[in-house]
Amino acid sequence: MLDFRPIALVNGILLATLATAMMLPALVDLALGNPDWIVFATAAGATLFVGLAMTMSTRGSAGNMNVREAFVMTTLAWVLLAVFASLPFVWSELSLSFTDAYFESMSGLTTTGATVITGLDHAPPGILLWRGLLQWLGGLGIIVMAIAVLPMLQIGGMQLFKIEAFDTSEKILPRATQISGSLTGLYILFTLICAIAYHLAGMRVLDAIIHAMTTIATGGFSSHDASMGYFESTPIEVIGIVFMIIGSLPFLLYIKAAQGHRGALYRDSQVRLFLAFVLIFSLLAMLAQKQSGHGVDHGFREAIFNVVSIMTGTGYSTVDYDLWGPFAVALFFCLTFVGGCAGSTSCGIKVFRFAVLYANISQHLKRVLHPHGIFVNMYNGRKLPDHVSGAVMCFFFLYFLSVGVVAIILTYAGLDVMGALSASATAISNVGPGLGPVIGPAGNFSTLSDFAKWTLSGAMLLGRLELFTVLVLLLPSFWRH
Amino acid sequence: MLDFRPIALVNGILLATLATAMMLPALVDLALGNPDWIVFATAAGATLFVGLAMTMSTRGSAGNMNVREAFVMTTLAWVLLAVFASLPFVWSELSLSFTDAYFESMSGLTTTGATVITGLDHAPPGILLWRGLLQWLGGLGIIVMAIAVLPMLQIGGMQLFKIEAFDTSEKILPRATQISGSLTGLYILFTLICAIAYHLAGMRVLDAIIHAMTTIATGGFSSHDASMGYFESTPIEVIGIVFMIIGSLPFLLYIKAAQGHRGALYRDSQVRLFLAFVLIFSLLAMLAQKQSGHGVDHGFREAIFNVVSIMTGTGYSTVDYDLWGPFAVALFFCLTFVGGCAGSTSCGIKVFRFAVLYANISQHLKRVLHPHGIFVNMYNGRKLPDHVSGAVMCFFFLYFLSVGVVAIILTYAGLDVMGALSASATAISNVGPGLGPVIGPAGNFSTLSDFAKWTLSGAMLLGRLELFTVLVLLLPSFWRH
Repeated sequence: MLDFRPIALVNGILLATLATAMMLPALVDLALGNPDWIVFATAAGATLFVGLAMTMSTRGSAGNMNVREAFVMTTLAWVLLAVFASLPFVWSELSLSFTDAYFESMSGLTTTGATVITGLDHAPPGILLWRGLLQWLGGLGIIVMAIAVLPMLQIGGMQLFKIEAFDTSEKILPRATQISGSLTGLYILFTLICAIAYHLAGMRVLDAIIHAMTTIATGGFSSHDASMGYFESTPIEVIGIVFMIIGSLPFLLYIKAAQGHRGALYRDSQVRLFLAFVLIFSLLAMLAQKQSGHGVDHGFREAIFNVVSIMTGTGYSTVDYDLWGPFAVALFFCLTFVGGCAGSTSCGIKVFRFAVLYANISQHLKRVLHPHGIFVNMYNGRKLPDHVSGAVMCFFFLYFLSVGVVAIILTYAGLDVMGALSASATAISNVGPGLGPVIGPAGNFSTLSDFAKWTLSGAMLLGRLELFTVLVLLLPSFWRH
Repeated sequence: MLDFRPIALVNGILLATLATAMMLPALVDLALGNPDWIVFATAAGATLFVGLAMTMSTRGSAGNMNVREAFVMTTLAWVLLAVFASLPFVWSELSLSFTDAYFESMSGLTTTGATVITGLDHAPPGILLWRGLLQWLGGLGIIVMAIAVLPMLQIGGMQLFKIEAFDTSEKILPRATQISGSLTGLYILFTLICAIAYHLAGMRVLDAIIHAMTTIATGGFSSHDASMGYFESTPIEVIGIVFMIIGSLPFLLYIKAAQGHRGALYRDSQVRLFLAFVLIFSLLAMLAQKQSGHGVDHGFREAIFNVVSIMTGTGYSTVDYDLWGPFAVALFFCLTFVGGCAGSTSCGIKVFRFAVLYANISQHLKRVLHPHGIFVNMYNGRKLPDHVSGAVMCFFFLYFLSVGVVAIILTYAGLDVMGALSASATAISNVGPGLGPVIGPAGNFSTLSDFAKWTLSGAMLLGRLELFTVLVLLLPSFWRH
């Protein structure tokens, strides 16, 4: 039997945190004289009430949970937070339908960045701040989860990072609490530096804060319909590139580096591989851009910015790269899958899995050539256990399978094949924009059917929780126990 | 050092066989008074000369070869045979360019069925027969290779079938010779029955023979531009469905069944899974067809015929299923990858790999739920060794990677994204038609650029030789030895 008390306890605490966060847009709207402050205050009250009720009624339950309870807790947390986070969207002057509001909340909390709202430039400031906050909180949540929870659950090879993390406790909750403190401090620090840099480069204060939050979270919500393209500023794009990359590196390594481990960042194979991917794809995108003849007069700033934006799963755009021709479209489609490093805010398959995959394939090819040889796989200077290799291969396959299945469901809902495939990939990889006129960098998800929006909300959750966390819940044997 | 003598010996014998086969269209053209008989006679002479020269000069070399020599021999054989097989296309009244001729030959020998020739209905009978013969020989070659060579080379999990095959010899050449005798007899028998059935159902003699050869080889070349749709006959389509399925089942099991092993076919997990796939995809295609409202008045014959045709990698078409809407397009795109059973003429990923994959994924999910449990993978009633699982997972990944890389190369050559992706998939899976107006069931590959045609010829070879056979040759360590 599952013990639902620790699950309710953690979810209650998270809801109370969300309610506290809602007070910020309420204060901003109040200060700027926007009537929507009442909406945020009401939503905060409702959320706080439910959160406290859940916490109170389960206080005194054991502060620990087993593996199965951790799976339920994690998935439920994201589903529940998105429900309450969508209240302001429904009640505000935008008066979104619940479907649209839930899509927007899930897109925020999963740091996807796909939006159904048009007319952002004239949207109330509270709502814009709320969208930024959702991504910022989602990004922090995902780092804590990736470091504290997923390695314990042995998700898709994440057990690799068990040994690297703080090894003081094997219990999930104390571990998470201990780690999240120093991470939160660091996360706030990065956000502040980024916001100040954006402001100095010419953004207004509110824009700078919102973009700093969605940059470091590699989320990609903007306060303008034209996304980062609105500012048409080289310094702002350079700052964006730097902080999107910072958000995509393993946060634990920053702490190690701060503790005096020199070279912690530079010597890590994930970091090196990530930067190599950025370089190679930027060069390829420049090639595509040059071949198409579009926008080469801006140097290659556009190519690099958009490569970093899509690869890290941020999803800002400065230009409609659909116009760079089919080679660029194929390139950006591949980029959708790459992602950043494990233990960062970024999404997608993540570069360490490509390293493990490469090791597996070259081991296999060697075996084919030398059937009686013995070949050991290495990762980051250590021997790679077979069950980790297997987990990574399963992850890859389930990733592409999920993208395929979601795409087929979307074609059944009436999307064209290319649109469905790119919507599915961009949702599961938590990137944001897809390809083509409807959901591409120049488009918007608002025109999709409700069925498609719910499918994509589910897909974002699936990708954000690294597939397995959600998929095990669908196994009959999970519940039979 | 590689010993090239046994490689040249085998390739010489294969070329001499090809030359003998060329005499058939020469005789047919002569009998029907078509001047192209000189073309075939000349090509046969040239091919025979080269083949005999290679055989003679290497006679007396040891009749055995090591693993590395077997890799070179296999890849070289397909490349070389396609060169000589293309001579009649260049010299005949069609006077194709060498690029087009090589594409057509490779498409024939790999049993792909993509064509660059238009006006088939008025093409010389010798050429039509030659196209059929190429697929028929390619199909036979692939069965022998899949049974005798690939399991020895441990290609992508094919070592699973080592134990099931004739275990009298571990040496590649004697083994291949021994097996190929009984297989060839069986293959000829099936072809004859199929040809007689087609003739009784209304095809003219030459049409019946050509279609019987390309049906059993799951190749898909037709003697009409409208492919099987030309005949508009239910009996012919039913015969086609039956013999495409026969061509996609493991040929060794027919021999076992003939030897009195009752239930050899029915009890095999590959056969069951294959038939289950046919059933499920046919139902889904009917759903798509019904939803689109196209052609439901023909019952669901069209849905089943086209599902079997694409899934087995045959590639006949009776209807432009692009018109059934995006859901059907997505469905047929997925079908491209499935393939038939190992040890048959069919292509693609092949169903046994899906069974191994399913076992791996469910084992992994169980491990996630019960980190300390021990779970054994089974396949076809036997324990599945870890290195076979690993090989299959690598195969899957390299398959999708190859499709992606070839698609990107094609977009660079100017194809649109959807066209490039479908051309890449249909070539690597040796299916034949792609999707969309250009290369779809109603289209033709003739309009592509030379660069794209060479890329696709390479992709067909890569897929037909199960990736690894070709890819290991690209490893520097293969040659460094």
